[in-house]
Amino acid sequence: MTRTRDDQLDGLGTVTDTVGRARRAAPGLADAGRKRRARMLETMAGQLERSRAELVATAAAETALAPDVLDAEVTRTADQLRMFADVLREGSYLEATVDAAPAGDVLRWLRPLGPVAVFGASNFPFAYGVAGGDTASALAAGCPVVAKEHPSHPRTCRAVLSALRTAAVAAGITPDVIGMVSGFEAGAQLVTHPDVTAVGFTGSVGGGRALFDLCAARAEPIPFYGELGSVNPAVVLPYAARTPDAVIEPLVTSMLTRGGQVCTKAGLVFLPDDAEDLADRLRRRMAAAPHPVLLNASIAAAFPAGTAKRAALDGVEVLCGDGPVAGAGERGPVRPVLLATTVTGLLADANADLREECFGPYAVLVRYRSVAELRTALAVLPASLVAGVYGTDDDLTDARGVLDVLVDRAGRVVWNQPTSGLRVGWATHHGGGYPASTAAGTTSVGATAIRRWLRPSALQGWPTALLPDELRDASGGAEPSLPVRRDGRLHLPRAEAAA
Amino acid sequence: MTRTRDDQLDGLGTVTDTVGRARRAAPGLADAGRKRRARMLETMAGQLERSRAELVATAAAETALAPDVLDAEVTRTADQLRMFADVLREGSYLEATVDAAPAGDVLRWLRPLGPVAVFGASNFPFAYGVAGGDTASALAAGCPVVAKEHPSHPRTCRAVLSALRTAAVAAGITPDVIGMVSGFEAGAQLVTHPDVTAVGFTGSVGGGRALFDLCAARAEPIPFYGELGSVNPAVVLPYAARTPDAVIEPLVTSMLTRGGQVCTKAGLVFLPDDAEDLADRLRRRMAAAPHPVLLNASIAAAFPAGTAKRAALDGVEVLCGDGPVAGAGERGPVRPVLLATTVTGLLADANADLREECFGPYAVLVRYRSVAELRTALAVLPASLVAGVYGTDDDLTDARGVLDVLVDRAGRVVWNQPTSGLRVGWATHHGGGYPASTAAGTTSVGATAIRRWLRPSALQGWPTALLPDELRDASGGAEPSLPVRRDGRLHLPRAEAAA
Repeated sequence: MTRTRDDQLDGLGTVTDTVGRARRAAPGLADAGRKRRARMLETMAGQLERSRAELVATAAAETALAPDVLDAEVTRTADQLRMFADVLREGSYLEATVDAAPAGDVLRWLRPLGPVAVFGASNFPFAYGVAGGDTASALAAGCPVVAKEHPSHPRTCRAVLSALRTAAVAAGITPDVIGMVSGFEAGAQLVTHPDVTAVGFTGSVGGGRALFDLCAARAEPIPFYGELGSVNPAVVLPYAARTPDAVIEPLVTSMLTRGGQVCTKAGLVFLPDDAEDLADRLRRRMAAAPHPVLLNASIAAAFPAGTAKRAALDGVEVLCGDGPVAGAGERGPVRPVLLATTVTGLLADANADLREECFGPYAVLVRYRSVAELRTALAVLPASLVAGVYGTDDDLTDARGVLDVLVDRAGRVVWNQPTSGLRVGWATHHGGGYPASTAAGTTSVGATAIRRWLRPSALQGWPTALLPDELRDASGGAEPSLPVRRDGRLHLPRAEAAA
Repeated sequence: MTRTRDDQLDGLGTVTDTVGRARRAAPGLADAGRKRRARMLETMAGQLERSRAELVATAAAETALAPDVLDAEVTRTADQLRMFADVLREGSYLEATVDAAPAGDVLRWLRPLGPVAVFGASNFPFAYGVAGGDTASALAAGCPVVAKEHPSHPRTCRAVLSALRTAAVAAGITPDVIGMVSGFEAGAQLVTHPDVTAVGFTGSVGGGRALFDLCAARAEPIPFYGELGSVNPAVVLPYAARTPDAVIEPLVTSMLTRGGQVCTKAGLVFLPDDAEDLADRLRRRMAAAPHPVLLNASIAAAFPAGTAKRAALDGVEVLCGDGPVAGAGERGPVRPVLLATTVTGLLADANADLREECFGPYAVLVRYRSVAELRTALAVLPASLVAGVYGTDDDLTDARGVLDVLVDRAGRVVWNQPTSGLRVGWATHHGGGYPASTAAGTTSVGATAIRRWLRPSALQGWPTALLPDELRDASGGAEPSLPVRRDGRLHLPRAEAAA
């Protein structure tokens, strides 16, 4: 597709201009209602799929991710937009609630906050990018989005932006429901702009915390929904360690998906100290794994430095990965690094370097002597997005105590499955305590991610004629068109109730 | 009831000790499950009612509120605890959600955060106090509470604490699910304690913002749910202004409930500039109203200073309230103050003094020349907890535009009813933008207040034997004991579905 320069820049502007457009687009997007917004999201999904070839080629050139991986990610991103269309049509997300009262009903429902800023991630240019989960859920909620262009894949961002704006117009809605700003300084300006009502962010602890602090320091603070960093534990219980065949594949997948550049990577793999066969097989798999090119220059620079620093710690052994593949400072392929230590070594790491995330094909095996010692180690880990546990029926007794500790510290706890490869659905939770998330009560992925961009509103004693369209049938005795709680009791629409 | 000194101090301790007790109480409170926590809340409600005479007498002496007002507040507080017992039994609050997947279901539900700090208000020693909505919702969620003793009614706080601890024991749960700390410094220590997971606060903008900032600056930030301050507008539309009989009572109630010391007070009353009869009748009602003694020395000092400062502004007229009743500096009865200005005067108030809350029997009439001018004025007001609109059928056209502006800025918008006198139920919303609330997505009152103390947790592929008791019947095809969303579709328990 040939474009003029002006076409390419459409939707990309200064912070003041782009937020202004978003603010002016907000009432129309809210008033479009659930059904029209659902159609808009589906149109966006279709437009991404129609632009698939261009999007994949552009992102492959910028991120060094494989085209088949990116192709699947376009599908996931389109599916995510369609899922939010389902969420809109189902309608529960509005939390429509009516309490009858003598002087007139009290109706409570959720309304969109207003323009939202979205900072996408380096590692998923589509699924956590300009058209990713933050954008999809915000648009679904009725909030226009101003995205921050990602410096490591700007052309991908622009191509996605163009697709979304084209689709908005095709759906009869202003393209200004999605805009973009570019440049480091624009990020800080964006989160401090008085008309920005909330921020979604996926990225580093350093950058995320700086923006979080700006949001909290505003005269009128706004919520900052950040997914910052996560060292995810995977635990192989004693009996499972004796049947390595069942755990090798999901563990290797957890460590190496996208070259170990996913927020759900298993970074610390706990295994019994006598599980030599398992350790050796993991070492051989890591040593034989492909040498990925990392996502950008900053990650490429951090990987050799970060792994070398950890390898030099007391009590840490290098199982594989000595020496770079590419020359120093180059963004060439890197050799996977597998380190090993003991619980004692993990606990003795005074700077907690081993408990910090490091993107790339890198993990640490942590040998435990007993399940009691394992629990002690798990209890000192930072909060994480996910934790994995591998067990057999014989491990169930030990599993209870381990799962108790993990559920307290990880947003999602997986049994005998890879931690990477998040399913996007109604039950999805992708969050956790800090620094996995800056808002542990929320998720950045899945149907309930929409809740972040909404606020409750109560209408007390209003005449029916003045009620918003979507609430008019929630009151009174009529069959509602969406789930409604009346005087404390949930009522489903007839089609749902009959099913 | 006679008590020893030790009894009185039970549950009151240092921050370290009290938070430590709360932390140790947390797993047991969570594991008690919905039904046992519901019984505990009901036992607490009963114990408050059994202690009613002592509680009312203590609070009347400390707050100068009338015994009948406090008696009704004890009832409201007990009812609120019982409402959360209903919320627990109903079970929707857990948001139990199951997505079937080939490798094993993904289950999502909400879990308690952990120990919670609660700072009660000066004006509702029961309903927003140690046993108030923050505490009731946190205990319901399964979070132990450490309350901060309120310096203007410490004996009331202690009596309530004692009642709650007695009830916890009677319900077979450790009394350490509720504890208390005392003193200014303890407040800051409490919100920065690493084991405190969230804060509920009702109070001033200054104090609340300081604690909010401490929470945001923590190494691991925690949510601060603060209700800080609110200047609530009440709007009399043109036709309603011609039938003053219908609006006088709800307006006076809105201005003078509890001596004008409620967060839902109508502080700015907008009326047409030709509504002389209405203005005059409001003036006469204010001038003839009782002279309340204010809640504490600080509010008593702020009232004459604050009203005098506002009365001296350009374009502000004093309709009634000249001169104090009590001597300067005394905490004696005060004369209600009614000021008047125009929209021009409101907009010209450069320091926005008229747009700041002032506790006590005080309000400002704001005369508007047209509905367009009215909308301009409403759009510059800070976010508020509530707004009131008075209209007749002839006002409906004007009402739409006014309600649009108000719904954007107020958490609750009331039609032809007082703004004060919040109903506590399932549809209740008590929140709004900053400074009405520091977390616009949440409410401090009503059934959904429980959501603040919960975080999602996803369990992926778990064997049924390891699932928490409350989720075991959520998976699979059995009739669930609580509302469950399966593959996107809500399912109600049989009793609900049949009703």
